[in-house]
Amino acid sequence: MERHLDHDLDLIRQNLLRMGGLVEEMISGAMVALLARDSGGAARVIDNDHAVDQLEKEIDEDCHTVLARHQPTAGDLRFLVAVMKISGDLERIGDSAVNIAQGAQVLNQEPPLKPYIDLPRLAETARGMVRDSLDSLVHRDARLALAVCSRDDQVDGLYKQLFRELLTYMIEDPRNVSRALHLLLIARNLERVADHATNVAEDVIYYVEGRDIRHSAAF
Amino acid sequence: MERHLDHDLDLIRQNLLRMGGLVEEMISGAMVALLARDSGGAARVIDNDHAVDQLEKEIDEDCHTVLARHQPTAGDLRFLVAVMKISGDLERIGDSAVNIAQGAQVLNQEPPLKPYIDLPRLAETARGMVRDSLDSLVHRDARLALAVCSRDDQVDGLYKQLFRELLTYMIEDPRNVSRALHLLLIARNLERVADHATNVAEDVIYYVEGRDIRHSAAF
Repeated sequence: MERHLDHDLDLIRQNLLRMGGLVEEMISGAMVALLARDSGGAARVIDNDHAVDQLEKEIDEDCHTVLARHQPTAGDLRFLVAVMKISGDLERIGDSAVNIAQGAQVLNQEPPLKPYIDLPRLAETARGMVRDSLDSLVHRDARLALAVCSRDDQVDGLYKQLFRELLTYMIEDPRNVSRALHLLLIARNLERVADHATNVAEDVIYYVEGRDIRHSAAF
Repeated sequence: MERHLDHDLDLIRQNLLRMGGLVEEMISGAMVALLARDSGGAARVIDNDHAVDQLEKEIDEDCHTVLARHQPTAGDLRFLVAVMKISGDLERIGDSAVNIAQGAQVLNQEPPLKPYIDLPRLAETARGMVRDSLDSLVHRDARLALAVCSRDDQVDGLYKQLFRELLTYMIEDPRNVSRALHLLLIARNLERVADHATNVAEDVIYYVEGRDIRHSAAF
């Protein structure tokens, strides 16, 4: 029985990491599609969303089955509860990647507005947070998870800076409005990716240490 | 034992509905703050967020305790799994209400841009979806939950229409840009509220009927 449980938990962990790897790739792919003006690449990102959605359903069903069959307690129970929350966050990260890819498709039809200096930095930070939050799960590393949470402020700062910059572009010249707006929505999506990565990291801390640090200022 | 379980599940249900009522009020409050230009009202909405966050933590902890103590199966297990997902969605609806209230505070410092014809309609639809999704939980009414899901397209249509209208405003006159952008972000938040209400309704269907209709076109 115990060995079956370990086996089932391990399959769930593998599926979750597969899902995580997929959404990480989708964010990178969407940004490449934007920066290299590759609308075909954007379409491939959008196509991947279906696989992410299916993985979410599969993982949730597997968690449910393990809960019903093995009635786990303590760390195993916390793991399953965390996984069911994390799968939802990863699915939403996938949705954000799709939104970015769709924005890239619109933007690729017009000449580029500017060299996007800070947008790749925002994307790299957000994607790094997703990767580290998943690494913290693999290694049960609450300290790494905590470091992910603390990077969310940095992302918020970058987003606000981009917001002001793009707003100025829009006011300066009506011909910039549509493109700057789509870039702003892309920035907004990256900011949400970082939020979801923070949620994942918080769930990892709950799983590893059994404490719920959500909405607490002191960490 | 069985009666303790029923009692515990009932307390969780009550807390979840309290949380739902609170975020519904926050959406209404944020919209009133915008339309009546009442920045004090906006501040009260923002203040409520803390209570919502605390309820989320309390509900999740209670679910965990019941899972560990009673090891429920079948419908009770589905209920707890659904509740843990729903609490997350309600918390995010609360965050969207805060974003709208903050937008109202910015907009109230400038003369109004237009009578906001479609924004209240979008807000009313999104708020109705939140209310109905919670009603469907109370009455275990999968048909009502399904009706919530089918209204999401209507919200997306309203959002796209508002997007085009506000984009035109921005292009027409640079003095409109900042205000139209804040209105657009408010519309975007309302569209997200509807998304989360749809998620809640999907979780209710899973709880009541045991089937996962997420990401399936045919419902």
